[in-house]
Amino acid sequence: MENRTPLYERFAHELEERILAGTFPEGSRVPALRESAAQHSLSLSTVLQAYRLLETRGIIEARPQSGYYVKYRPRKVLLEPCSEPARDDPTRVSIDDLSMRLYRDKHDPDFAQFGAATPDPALLPTAKLNRLLAELAREGRFAEDRSTLTEGCEELRVQVAQRAFGYGCDVGPNDIVITAGCSEAMSFCLQAACSPGDLIAIESPTYFGILLILESLHLTALEIPTNPTTGISLDALEFALENHPVKAVVAMTNFNNPLGSCMPDNAKAELAAMLSRRGVPLIENDIYGELYFSEHRPSLAKAHDVDGSVLLCSSFSKDISPGYRIGWVAPGRYLNKVRKLKMAFTNGTSILPQLTIARYLESGGYDLHLRKIRKAYAQKSLGMTRAIEEHFPKGTRIAEPQGGYVIWVKLPGGLDSMLLYREAEKSRITIAPGCMFSPTGKFRDYVRLNAAAWSERTEKDLARLGRLARDISGAAKP
Amino acid sequence: MENRTPLYERFAHELEERILAGTFPEGSRVPALRESAAQHSLSLSTVLQAYRLLETRGIIEARPQSGYYVKYRPRKVLLEPCSEPARDDPTRVSIDDLSMRLYRDKHDPDFAQFGAATPDPALLPTAKLNRLLAELAREGRFAEDRSTLTEGCEELRVQVAQRAFGYGCDVGPNDIVITAGCSEAMSFCLQAACSPGDLIAIESPTYFGILLILESLHLTALEIPTNPTTGISLDALEFALENHPVKAVVAMTNFNNPLGSCMPDNAKAELAAMLSRRGVPLIENDIYGELYFSEHRPSLAKAHDVDGSVLLCSSFSKDISPGYRIGWVAPGRYLNKVRKLKMAFTNGTSILPQLTIARYLESGGYDLHLRKIRKAYAQKSLGMTRAIEEHFPKGTRIAEPQGGYVIWVKLPGGLDSMLLYREAEKSRITIAPGCMFSPTGKFRDYVRLNAAAWSERTEKDLARLGRLARDISGAAKP
Repeated sequence: MENRTPLYERFAHELEERILAGTFPEGSRVPALRESAAQHSLSLSTVLQAYRLLETRGIIEARPQSGYYVKYRPRKVLLEPCSEPARDDPTRVSIDDLSMRLYRDKHDPDFAQFGAATPDPALLPTAKLNRLLAELAREGRFAEDRSTLTEGCEELRVQVAQRAFGYGCDVGPNDIVITAGCSEAMSFCLQAACSPGDLIAIESPTYFGILLILESLHLTALEIPTNPTTGISLDALEFALENHPVKAVVAMTNFNNPLGSCMPDNAKAELAAMLSRRGVPLIENDIYGELYFSEHRPSLAKAHDVDGSVLLCSSFSKDISPGYRIGWVAPGRYLNKVRKLKMAFTNGTSILPQLTIARYLESGGYDLHLRKIRKAYAQKSLGMTRAIEEHFPKGTRIAEPQGGYVIWVKLPGGLDSMLLYREAEKSRITIAPGCMFSPTGKFRDYVRLNAAAWSERTEKDLARLGRLARDISGAAKP
Repeated sequence: MENRTPLYERFAHELEERILAGTFPEGSRVPALRESAAQHSLSLSTVLQAYRLLETRGIIEARPQSGYYVKYRPRKVLLEPCSEPARDDPTRVSIDDLSMRLYRDKHDPDFAQFGAATPDPALLPTAKLNRLLAELAREGRFAEDRSTLTEGCEELRVQVAQRAFGYGCDVGPNDIVITAGCSEAMSFCLQAACSPGDLIAIESPTYFGILLILESLHLTALEIPTNPTTGISLDALEFALENHPVKAVVAMTNFNNPLGSCMPDNAKAELAAMLSRRGVPLIENDIYGELYFSEHRPSLAKAHDVDGSVLLCSSFSKDISPGYRIGWVAPGRYLNKVRKLKMAFTNGTSILPQLTIARYLESGGYDLHLRKIRKAYAQKSLGMTRAIEEHFPKGTRIAEPQGGYVIWVKLPGGLDSMLLYREAEKSRITIAPGCMFSPTGKFRDYVRLNAAAWSERTEKDLARLGRLARDISGAAKP
């Protein structure tokens, strides 16, 4: 496979490795721009890009008139790819009960919110949305004649199509159906492409919401090992397709929830080609796609779709508003089926949030907003990683997300995260225990933490959580 | 069965019969209030109520200083209850394609809109909603912390519960889940109570939207004869339950779409009791329940629910806004299952339309609004009935709706309404052909017309439609 990583990213990676190795300790000055450029035969602008990337990620910082300094030395107690055993466990917890509790707890202001993957309210453009909404209401833009188009309002589909074009997808406004969030988009794709009883290949670990949808639709999940860095294993998937009657594949190619993994471009192309060859549709969930920590937006398998067999789902719930419930799907050759499902089940999406988001996207502030929140989430993720390293028991391992805002943590010594979940709940901290991310009870010694809730103010809650983990871990030892 | 019809309604019916019989021709004066009271040994207020009822229905009118006069003599070319044969017809049309076309055509301003059952835009409180929305936006009421409750925002559930209490249902705010319209409510009920492959008893004819949902959920329909006046046949239903593995019953007890039928109170009680005895849930769709033409709101089977086996669905799409897509369900003992489905498929309903409708209901103008639109729809229905009588071929029969705003019409001589549908479409008139209301191709010689679109301005379109029907009818004869 050809190495498509841009030069500046490779150089940033090299420098990071040296910081990790202790060559440049925390607080020390890294080589000046010109120095690095000369030493490594790079252009000044490449070096500058690399430094900015590390700055965005919170690893180095610029001090005026002085240069760049190491702010944080990543410890790399990182997750290795590994296959987890399924547990056939009579005490197995119900994923939907846990989900209901997560959703309930997230409305309780007394809880430290490391459970549900809700965005930071301070990083949503709520005030601007309210202004636009008031404007639209005054203009009477919610009149009835334009209200209930099954596929959603045209203004919004145009905006979505323009963005999709921007990252290489051949999707026009008429190829899109607006949905009630990404969940509805996913559920329509599964219903369009599959029938009750069908076998669906999913990432392992996977977002528990997908498991709820599969269960509700009477579909069966087949877990495919997924690498914390590069995403779903293509070898394992190919083997699965060869040996099982898989009817569709569901994958978060960018920033799997909970791993934060990102499939390399060429792996995405290979995935699209492999599935197209076998006539198996890919349901690609890109809900975190805009929240990348690197300098450029990662691509999509949809960009390599030649026969409409990639169904691309996304939403504005992570970056604009979770409460608006606006998502979308570009269902490829399943367009008509998805339209019919939308017509049957909800007739169309509510017009108010659609038009408001369309107006927000048209207003041109979205890109600026995204730049701001990408940086904030990268820093929150790093901050939380650092705090976990500090407060959690020795031997804890942490995935290094490349985007999004959740942190996947492996507790040491096979510690049962349901114990931690229950202790934390008593202590008014909500977390997502690992067993929620597998239909077969894998990942019992993992937790997912919401870095969007991380700040200097909540570090004390994370410290408390770490103490609980250490206590349980200590008690578990002989 | 005890006769529970109020005295004034019985007297109104008597007077109407005399008008029908020609005792009081159009334009003639009916007996003065005091005269009627004395002749029939009724109180003055009972007679006044009866006259007002006939006035609301457009049959008599008050002339100042002069008394009441006959405005319209109903002709009673009404539908008789009858059983229609199923057609095993190779040219059978696809209900979902026809639905897609209805939904598409309704956005075409060139079309006379007798097809989709959309409310009259002039009878929606759009301006007031816009004002409330602007207010809420200014107050910043769409902040994130209260956004994504799975069951919907509490303000709205409280309002819904208060109204449900008003018509005799023992339903509190915590028994309710807010949905994306009545369709989503229905689809959740069917998924909560049934599994793929199950047999569901439905009214015949039934709203085609229900057929689309059943098909999408891989459920099978069993059609139960439904009387144009009194609704679903309890005898036929009991026979069906005895002889078929029916897993749920779906019924519009108030104002079946397309019939406009209304089950008498005692029949509703009997229906609830029969199903409870057999442990079969009833999914009761009350979407048109507020649009009654009589003086009081009809009751619900839900009011007779003793064990949570009635799942009540409704929405604000017919009287407040179709574009907001806000409905609700009180799913009885299926509450938790419905909550989980809502969580899995859409996570929650968009907050903007929920809060706006809650505020509208709190504002107190709703009852006044309902009084206004009930009268308007009663008059539109009567106006359209009259125009059909005038313009359609001889032998056309018409159901007499007791609420809602659709008119169910039987064409004479077995005339195929798909022919009329196609001719009408060429002529820029959209109608709903009868075959859409049965999964087995019954009702091919019926059409449903949307009386909400009827006005003196659109009478010419109806006249054109009648002419097309006469032409087809004439051509069909030897």
